[in-house]
Order: sequence, then structure tokens, then C-alpha cells
Amino acid sequence: MAKEETKSIGITAKKSEDAPEWYSQVCLKAELADYSPIKGCMVIRPYGYAIWQKIQDYFNTRLKNLEVQNAYFPLFIPESFFIKEAEHAEGFAPEVAWVERKSESEERFAVRPTSETIMYDAYSRWIRSWRDLPLRVNQWCNIVRWEVKDVKLFIRSREFLWQEGHCVYETAEERDKEVFMILDEYKKLAEDILAVPVIKGKKSPDETFPGADFSTTIESLMPDGKALQMGTSHALNQGFAKAFNISFLGRNEKTIYPFQNSWGVSTRLIGAIVMMHGDDNGLVLPPLIAPIHIVIVPIYFDKNKEKVLEEAEKIYSKLSKNFSVKLDDRSEYSPGYKFNHWEMKGVPLRLELGPKDIDAKQIVLVRRDTGAKEAVPMAEMESKINTLLSEIQKDLLAKGKKFIETHTINAKTTEELKDAVSKGNWALADFCGIKECEAKLKEETGGITARVIPLDQKESKPSKCVHCGKEAKYKSYFARAY
Amino acid sequence: MAKEETKSIGITAKKSEDAPEWYSQVCLKAELADYSPIKGCMVIRPYGYAIWQKIQDYFNTRLKNLEVQNAYFPLFIPESFFIKEAEHAEGFAPEVAWVERKSESEERFAVRPTSETIMYDAYSRWIRSWRDLPLRVNQWCNIVRWEVKDVKLFIRSREFLWQEGHCVYETAEERDKEVFMILDEYKKLAEDILAVPVIKGKKSPDETFPGADFSTTIESLMPDGKALQMGTSHALNQGFAKAFNISFLGRNEKTIYPFQNSWGVSTRLIGAIVMMHGDDNGLVLPPLIAPIHIVIVPIYFDKNKEKVLEEAEKIYSKLSKNFSVKLDDRSEYSPGYKFNHWEMKGVPLRLELGPKDIDAKQIVLVRRDTGAKEAVPMAEMESKINTLLSEIQKDLLAKGKKFIETHTINAKTTEELKDAVSKGNWALADFCGIKECEAKLKEETGGITARVIPLDQKESKPSKCVHCGKEAKYKSYFARAY
Repeated sequence: MAKEETKSIGITAKKSEDAPEWYSQVCLKAELADYSPIKGCMVIRPYGYAIWQKIQDYFNTRLKNLEVQNAYFPLFIPESFFIKEAEHAEGFAPEVAWVERKSESEERFAVRPTSETIMYDAYSRWIRSWRDLPLRVNQWCNIVRWEVKDVKLFIRSREFLWQEGHCVYETAEERDKEVFMILDEYKKLAEDILAVPVIKGKKSPDETFPGADFSTTIESLMPDGKALQMGTSHALNQGFAKAFNISFLGRNEKTIYPFQNSWGVSTRLIGAIVMMHGDDNGLVLPPLIAPIHIVIVPIYFDKNKEKVLEEAEKIYSKLSKNFSVKLDDRSEYSPGYKFNHWEMKGVPLRLELGPKDIDAKQIVLVRRDTGAKEAVPMAEMESKINTLLSEIQKDLLAKGKKFIETHTINAKTTEELKDAVSKGNWALADFCGIKECEAKLKEETGGITARVIPLDQKESKPSKCVHCGKEAKYKSYFARAY
Repeated sequence: MAKEETKSIGITAKKSEDAPEWYSQVCLKAELADYSPIKGCMVIRPYGYAIWQKIQDYFNTRLKNLEVQNAYFPLFIPESFFIKEAEHAEGFAPEVAWVERKSESEERFAVRPTSETIMYDAYSRWIRSWRDLPLRVNQWCNIVRWEVKDVKLFIRSREFLWQEGHCVYETAEERDKEVFMILDEYKKLAEDILAVPVIKGKKSPDETFPGADFSTTIESLMPDGKALQMGTSHALNQGFAKAFNISFLGRNEKTIYPFQNSWGVSTRLIGAIVMMHGDDNGLVLPPLIAPIHIVIVPIYFDKNKEKVLEEAEKIYSKLSKNFSVKLDDRSEYSPGYKFNHWEMKGVPLRLELGPKDIDAKQIVLVRRDTGAKEAVPMAEMESKINTLLSEIQKDLLAKGKKFIETHTINAKTTEELKDAVSKGNWALADFCGIKECEAKLKEETGGITARVIPLDQKESKPSKCVHCGKEAKYKSYFARAY
């Protein structure tokens, strides 16, 4: 029985003391993920995959509204494609896994690290006239990026799942409009569904996608003080269209190269949920993303077991109509064990039911996020649950927003910037936006980079760059990043 | 405009005369799929992928009822895993794609041709006690099998999409029960949703999955006279559990090896729909799997254009509440062009609306499967559409069933068997079930194999094997197969 006992032990690391160890334990013990025998690869367990499916379901509904269609493109990309767009090839070169050739005559090919090239080859056959535009296609698939240091479940792994949207437009205006429209969608997904607050903005030149005119991002600050890029939306330059010969007969009867964008979010989002909301007892899930909303834990002695279980089952049937409910009627575990177990798994609400509750025609509801406990008349059970789930969703986002507010420090000098970041904050500072300056800052500080240049610069009258002292273009958030 | 014109040309091959050419043209021109620059790989275009998503949605609902949970396992499988179960390794060896090693010290690894080994390695850590069983896990993913001859879109390609269910049980009885339960689900999916009739049965020893005690299959006969395996459900032997050290502490406190099954269907199902229902004008889609149920084609001259389009939009809004509807209001194409276009794409119903129809308060409905055309009073539009969609769904299955009935020939001798198969039939014959006999038959006939040994043997009193003349065990269907 040694194995059983091991399983029952909760999280042994404190989030505030050893965040990386705490994070791994939560992912493993809440059964979101497991390590794989191939270094850097991971197994997404059913409980973690259920969260991914909820993200997919939500986002697929949004995509349908935006007239984006799902499709599937090959896993393998010929080497010749890969090197057609020079900047792109260079950007991904170190990360590419190649497949062994079966014969000398066969071309070498890569396992996709992203699908621009293989998709745009197909687009060159599909797009002929302006009538074929806009073309909006998305795929949900697995991605491989090999040279990965500091592997971290969900956050950085050699294989991950994502969606990649790749759209084609007649004009740069349409392209840009939808780059920002998707960025808005990503912000909505992060904040309204995952309850993770983000800053919407542009990437610095150094962090711009290889082959893009400009890149946009939603970026958050994790409680351990590191920034996390949660989604990107890129305005590609026409290099891809030219390299892959995507052209169309325009309204003016001339042959024109179109404008493209690409955008994606990945299973990394699950890591953001864990880091942002979890506590020393384990996972804390926002209700809109939780595979289980409510766990019912019946509390009884032998003499009233039957009565309590019967009532618990009635409640289970009733609630199952509108909520995702789990009834934990396992007789081999104590209520205390069950409390810990479901807290570790982050279920937003626990419903306790004992013989005295039945007599008093009530149930007890316990919030996972705050631990707040209250007795609720049976007649008000469903409306109370609805209220509490909404409150939890709202409160988690508010808590995250407060965290980010209190951890954003205005920095006037490189010293202030370093100091702010070393204390687990984001530094907000004037920035010249010059690639060399950012590279130098990164080198000097051992890894601090410009994370996001907020679209909303309203309070900003940038004067001199925090680092090089040259004229600043905008304010930017600086941090170490995952 | 040469490209535009090419696009408007319909299917130029006849299904009855050149089935392979007809098939490719339908897949390409109905925009289900496209070839990829890597030989044997394919692009699943949005229209084809929408069908796959409908299959996924339907089957995920069924899986939830059966308490099967979705998860995701790594794409890469270490070579050492792959060779742990000898029979399995041998079965897949020629088809495996390997990834180039980055360093000598790193183990070689395969791109998954199936996931038994990588999943069972994880199971060995997850399963400790009888309380952890049954474990029922499924994944939707991409699969690579390299040495593929006769590439055919959807039917046989180097990469394809599938679901693979892998479950673990305490007893062989439970394993077997669910092997057949899943087989029933597959039959329901094929017949009730795709309208493709199938025979449910066991695989012959020669066609049994490497590592299985026995394999079951749903098998259909395509109009070109070749059999198509559409789904399999395998009762695995305990070799995997032993090789991967999956064991559990039983109710008797002893360590026990569990029993496992695995089962899958793939994007091949889309190929079955195309082949079974398509005609010389293109695709014919059963309503339950059609991305678009109804296409509205307004018919007008300049003088009444506005009136007709206005009414067409009203109808579109009304029908969109309960059906998936496309309004083809493109002014640059004639109604005739549109009829051909949507027929090629297999949309089950066409709704025509002209000025005279508006005056008569009616619409015209045309069935894709039969071409039958009828005027319907506007007031009865929705109920009539419902009736017609149900009828099309039912009639397509009935037509397929009739085809299979009339193409099943009882064979008493090898000559009769060969003759029946050469004429595009299934031969139903007594069979000894001996591996060597089947191998010999296959060699002698240039490829005829035992496709499926029907579970329903009620009419069968097998006497002597059709080929070797030894005592027969059962009746089996014989054919050439995809």
C-alpha cells in the first residue's frame, strides 16, 4: 500500500518559497500532466486536456463568428520550403527536428516548428483572384521545437499543442485590422475565461517574429515575478507571399502580392492558469475553465450513511442538469482526505452534506479560492451556486489585476529597472526601441528584455530611453520572461 | 482568367469507368483535400476538416457516455519502448519514420505509428490498485506510417488523423465486453451518421493486430468492388502489460497484470463517404455529416434582382436558426454554374427561388442524391426540409445496404471466390481460419484476403474451407482491400 500513501500526500513546496518545485508538484499531483520518457516532452493527462478542450470549444465558437475555418496541414515540411524565407529559416533553425531520410534521393524534411511555409505553399494554389480573399484558416495541431532549455510542464516543452491562424488579405489595412482584432480575442480569452490579466501591446524589434512587419502580444506577469507571453498575433511582411508565390488577380486586373497575418495560443495557457491562481494547497481553477464545478462530499457515520448518500445522490442528479458535478462517494477515504484531494485539483466549490444539514434542510458550500464556508438553505442551493461561481470568476481576475498593479514599477534608470525586476516586478520605462540597445540591456542584466509595448500609451510622454539615454519612442514593460 | 475557368470545370471522369481518377477529382474539386509537396502527405481543407469535426463532435459525446476521457501523449516514442513488445515492433517496423539524433548520446526515437507503447509506459505509473480500474483514455492525434504504396487521399497516406482509445481492465471479460461495445459504436457511427453500411466481425488470424488476442473490425464494400476497413477494436494480449510493467494490487491483495484493449477510426472515414455516396457530378453528403445542409440559389433578371435577393435573405435568416445554410448570392456566376458547384460539393438540398416562386408563395427544393425537384409552399418550407433531410439520410444508407446485398456472392470453390471478387463482389465462403491457408490464397489470387468474419454466423453451418478443403470454422467475407 506504499503507493497509495504516496498519492495522498499533498503539495510539499510553498509557492512563495520555491515556485518552480511548487509548480511541478501542482501539475503532477493535480494530474494535469506527466513527464515523458523523451526529455522535454510531456503527457497531457485527462484533467489537463479537459481544460484544453474548454479553451478549444470557446475559441472555436469565436473563430466561427470571425469566419475563420479550421483545416489540417502536414506535420512534415520539406527543407527547401523551410529556407525559402531566409529570415524565418534563420529564426527557427536551431529548434528544428529533422526526419531520417529513407533514401538518398528523398528530400530532407522537418517536423513543423510552425506551419507558415507548408500552409503558404497550399495557399499559392488556392488563391487566384481577389474573390478568393480574405482567406482565413486556422489549425489546431502539435508543434515541435527541439533545442529547449529549462523544460517546464506546459510552459516550455519540446512538443506542445496550439492553434495557428493564417489569413490572407488584399490590403495591409485589412491585415492590420484583424491582427488587432485577434489580439482583442486573445485578451478576452485570457481575462474573461482564464481570469489571467494581460497587457495588450507590440513586441520590441528584437522580439518580433522572423518575417513580420510587426508582432503583437498579450503578456502577463506571473506571481514569481517572471513575464509570460500568452499569445501573439503577427503582421507578416510580403516576404512569404513572394517566396511562396502567393499572388492574385486584383480588382484592377493586375497581379498583386497579398498581405498576411498569423496568430497563435498554445497549451502554455494552462501553465498560466496554474501559476496565476494556484496556492499552497494546489490548483485553483476559474469556474469557466474548470472541468468540474462542484464536488459533493457526503459526511456520515455508519448509522446514517444510507440516508446521507441517498440525499447526496439526489443533489447530484439535480445539480448535474446545469453544472459539472462530481459526487465523491468513495467509502475508503475520509472526508478530510477528500477535501484535500479536490482542493489540490482546484475544484471551485465544495458541497458538504452531513446528517445535521439534512435535518436543517441545508447544505454547506466552501469556496476553493478563499476557503469561505457558508450554510445555504436547500431551496436556495442553485441560485447560490450560480452567484458563487460568478463571484469566484470575477474575484480571481480582480486579484490578478491587483497583483499586476502593485507589481508594476516605473523605472527611470537601468539601476531602478534592474532593482524592480529583481524584486519580482515588471518595470515600466521609456524605451528607444533600438535592437542593439535591447540586446545590450539583456546582456548586462543577464536576461531582462522588453516584454510588451502597451497599445495604450495614454499616460506616456516618453523622453529618454531608460538604458541608452537616446530619444525614447514609447513606454515598455521590462522583465525576465519564461 | 484562365485559372478561374479551370476551377469551374466539373468532374471529368466517370465513377463507373475510372473510379480512382473519379475519386481524386472529387476530393480535390469538392475541396475536401489537397496533395502536399511531401509525397504521401495530404492537406485536409476546411470543407473536409468540417466533416472530420462533425465526426469528432458526435464521437466525443458517445465517449463521454462511456466514461472515456480524452488526453494527449507525445508524438515521439523512444526506440527502446518500441521493441519491448516484440510482435508489435515487428508489425510496425517497416512503416516507422525516425527522427535524426542531435547527439550520439541521445536515444533514437520514432514518430508515432500508433501509441500503445508510449501510453502504456504512462499507465504503468498511473495504475496501482484495482481502484484505478477501469482506466479509459482516448486521444485524437496525427499518425505517421511511412512505407505506403498506392497513396490515395484519405484512404492511404503517410500521415493521417485518428482517435485511438486505450483502456485497461481487471478482467478479460470486461475487456472483451468493451471491445464489442466500441465495435457497436463504430457501426452506429458508420451507418447512422455516415450512412455507410458495414459488417461487424472478427479479423482472421493473418489480419489480427500485432499483440492482440483477437481483433474486431467494421468493414464495408466500396462501389468499385474493394473492401474498406473502417474501424478496428482489439483485445490486446497481456504482452503489453508485461512488457511495460503495468500491474495492480488486486482485490485479493496480490499483484496482477491487467487486460487491455485498443480501438480506432481515422480520417479514412471521409474517403468512405466519398466513395460510397458520390456520383458523376461529385460528392453526395449524408445530411448528418454535411457542413452545409441547404444552399439557396436565387434566380433573377436585373429587373427583379432586388426583390429576389431580399426574399432569399429572409429565407436564409429563417432557416439559419435550425439548419446550416449557404446563400450563394454571388452576382458574377450564373445559376447553372452555382447548381454544378454545389452539386460537386455534395450539399444535400438546393433551394431555388425565382420571381415566379415569390408570387406563388413557394420555393423549389432539389435533392442532391436523386435530383428530385419539387415546389413547396413557403408555409411548409421548414417541415418539408426536415422531412427531406431525414429521407436523404435514410435512403443513402438503404441504397448502400442494397448495393452490399446484391454484391455478396456465396462461393463454394476458390474459382467461384476469385470470379465473384473479380466482378466487384464480396465472396462469402467457408473458411478454415488457418494463417498459412489465407497467405496461400492471397498469393495465388494476387491479393484476395479474408476481410471480416461476421459476428452474426446464424445462417452458417460451415463445412469445408473454400480454399484448402480442411474443416471450416466459420464463414468469412473475402475481397481485395484498400
